[in-house]
Amino acid sequence: MMNRLLIKNILLNGERCDILINGNIIEKIGSTLSEQTDRVIEGNGKYVIPGFINMHTHAAMTIMRGVGEDLYLKDWLHNRIWPTESKLTGEMVYWGTKLACLEMIKSGTTCFNDQYWFLTEAAKAAEEMGLRSFQPFVILDLMDESKASSIIEECEKAYVKSRQWNNRNTFAIGVHSPYSVSSKMLKWASDFARERELLVHLHLSETQQENTDCLRENGLTPTRYLDSLGVLGPNVLAAHCLWIDDEDIPILADRGVTVIHNINSNLKIASGYRFKYNEFRDAGVCVTLGTDGCASSNNLDMLETMKTSALIQKGWRMDPTSLPLDELMGLATNQAASALGIKAGKIEQGYLADLSLVDVNNFAFTPNINFLANLVYSANSSCIDTVICDGRIVMENRVVKGEAEILENVNRLYSQLI
Amino acid sequence: MMNRLLIKNILLNGERCDILINGNIIEKIGSTLSEQTDRVIEGNGKYVIPGFINMHTHAAMTIMRGVGEDLYLKDWLHNRIWPTESKLTGEMVYWGTKLACLEMIKSGTTCFNDQYWFLTEAAKAAEEMGLRSFQPFVILDLMDESKASSIIEECEKAYVKSRQWNNRNTFAIGVHSPYSVSSKMLKWASDFARERELLVHLHLSETQQENTDCLRENGLTPTRYLDSLGVLGPNVLAAHCLWIDDEDIPILADRGVTVIHNINSNLKIASGYRFKYNEFRDAGVCVTLGTDGCASSNNLDMLETMKTSALIQKGWRMDPTSLPLDELMGLATNQAASALGIKAGKIEQGYLADLSLVDVNNFAFTPNINFLANLVYSANSSCIDTVICDGRIVMENRVVKGEAEILENVNRLYSQLI
Repeated sequence: MMNRLLIKNILLNGERCDILINGNIIEKIGSTLSEQTDRVIEGNGKYVIPGFINMHTHAAMTIMRGVGEDLYLKDWLHNRIWPTESKLTGEMVYWGTKLACLEMIKSGTTCFNDQYWFLTEAAKAAEEMGLRSFQPFVILDLMDESKASSIIEECEKAYVKSRQWNNRNTFAIGVHSPYSVSSKMLKWASDFARERELLVHLHLSETQQENTDCLRENGLTPTRYLDSLGVLGPNVLAAHCLWIDDEDIPILADRGVTVIHNINSNLKIASGYRFKYNEFRDAGVCVTLGTDGCASSNNLDMLETMKTSALIQKGWRMDPTSLPLDELMGLATNQAASALGIKAGKIEQGYLADLSLVDVNNFAFTPNINFLANLVYSANSSCIDTVICDGRIVMENRVVKGEAEILENVNRLYSQLI
Repeated sequence: MMNRLLIKNILLNGERCDILINGNIIEKIGSTLSEQTDRVIEGNGKYVIPGFINMHTHAAMTIMRGVGEDLYLKDWLHNRIWPTESKLTGEMVYWGTKLACLEMIKSGTTCFNDQYWFLTEAAKAAEEMGLRSFQPFVILDLMDESKASSIIEECEKAYVKSRQWNNRNTFAIGVHSPYSVSSKMLKWASDFARERELLVHLHLSETQQENTDCLRENGLTPTRYLDSLGVLGPNVLAAHCLWIDDEDIPILADRGVTVIHNINSNLKIASGYRFKYNEFRDAGVCVTLGTDGCASSNNLDMLETMKTSALIQKGWRMDPTSLPLDELMGLATNQAASALGIKAGKIEQGYLADLSLVDVNNFAFTPNINFLANLVYSANSSCIDTVICDGRIVMENRVVKGEAEILENVNRLYSQLI
């Protein structure tokens, strides 16, 4: 028999209600529910919001948080990130991913789209932490086609192995980028994913240099290059898209590609800031948000990402109406869910029970004239009090099981990296 | 006899130490102090940092947080802010300022430079909350010189009254801006301040429009216009300076004017983003940071302001080395202190005991490879555990005296405003 959970006396869009969760689904929302359940949570006037969906991260990199600061990209990559990554073990990825999950839970994220090495260990960590995750297998041949057979073999093996994962964790394909993966592997990965109905997660037009190089080498923008290979489709999740040409936007829209905006990473690594949110939206492109990994943007806080995304749009366009609050909330929740093909991101009957309770009894929500404005612009993620993922409580009153053990293990392991 | 306070076992720049506070001064820092004191705080390996200094705010506007979101400036001002402000009372400013102080304490700010109506009530609130504040009397004649005599009378009266304030609160002059105050009042205010050694706090080149208008009306940029009136000097604190011409930077440097950068406000109101941090710094201008009031930027969180300031500099310049961490910390602490003429902003013997203890036993500081990077880029202000201002504990283990009463009173009053 499935667990049933009743949340009493919470505010949904400003209205007081109760929520009944049956198994992993929101079964009923009403003004006074009195169903018998295994467990009752007294909401005490907290607000309920959908769990955030972090669409682009490299979760395990949390273990190298702060390893390179205020450095030029080349220095950062060659002298900090790559030497550190070369020492990574499965154990480090396991604990690094657990730390990432802890941080995501504490900041109200219930689902993330990852892309990193040792995905079996990453999936195990996510599973144990109770989060929903998409785990793309990393395909990166650095244009060396001789690597194809071993990559294909490993990918197929990992895919088979992923069948043992629980229903919250989903295998996907991660082709690193059009500049680091050969056209042969891009096409293979794309076909492999399409045949098995898998998502494809990749980096696209993150830097201006990438565009210049692609135009020189292929005579096409990265978007058109991928399109010429037949890669683009509704299963593609394209991270960054910071330097997409206006002419490429209709192509992304037509192919149904999802765009993932990672503003904190773009700013901190100094890739740029002019993300074309309004143009993507107006063309009908599904836009979502991500934090990127902690080596580039230092945390996995979706509320922060939401705030910075909106501030930058308003700032660079000099238009305060750009990226208004209701749209912003959609990018971090239901738009991401629809891109991932899961029925989540809304507090509605029949949706997955992925949600957070927000404590508003504090200075950041005083006065509470506009809850969403307070959530995004005034509060920080310490207002997230309780988190439920897939119908299970993963944090209650800010307590996550196993927190001390995670910090201890990361502290034990990270010194072997740096 | 003065209070003596010993803080044991804390980390200062990564080194374990004890700090002895005598009255309001840091008297001694050593590896193991054993002085008898009235009170001992056990630091338990927390980090100590200087209290942040918020150089530009309109504290009481916290009572109207969230009153206007995602609106064009004219709509926001005419339909939200001005109608709300017209109903403000001294009681509202008192409780609004208390709420602001609560928020500043909770986020590690020990000193703020205000500018708002009912400054007697604001100073009373700051005094009771135990914070250090500068309280500029607002001079705003909207170019109507007939108002001069009544403004002068009120200002002189307020100045005399301010002599009764305690030593943490300092009277100053607030001339709203060169576009809203007549040249006659600008000159009077400047002379009044100089004769009494008072600071002058004003808004300068916040918007592009302001520059265009000033050039048309006076044939000069706002900076040159103020300079032509003899206003600019080392006692001037100029908020925003977002649209300062390159040719004006040496003038600000030469006159010793302090620049206050308010990035979240600039972005949210959509005034722009290209603050010339590196140019100001290289010209020798003292740059500091502020949050602006909660009506425009929604919170008073200096850690957030620091993070956004650094991210934007790196992003718009596409240079990750812009505004590095050590400089960033200086803008929010010791540079601001020197602009205000107080010996604060450093944890050193002989400095004012304005400081915070940071709890690093949590995910945001794991791993703790780079404490400052974690503080600014990974953590949020909920890591601020204990705050001491002027030698007195104003928050301990995140508890601020009177918190519930402040929230209650603001909740009682704000509905009369909107």
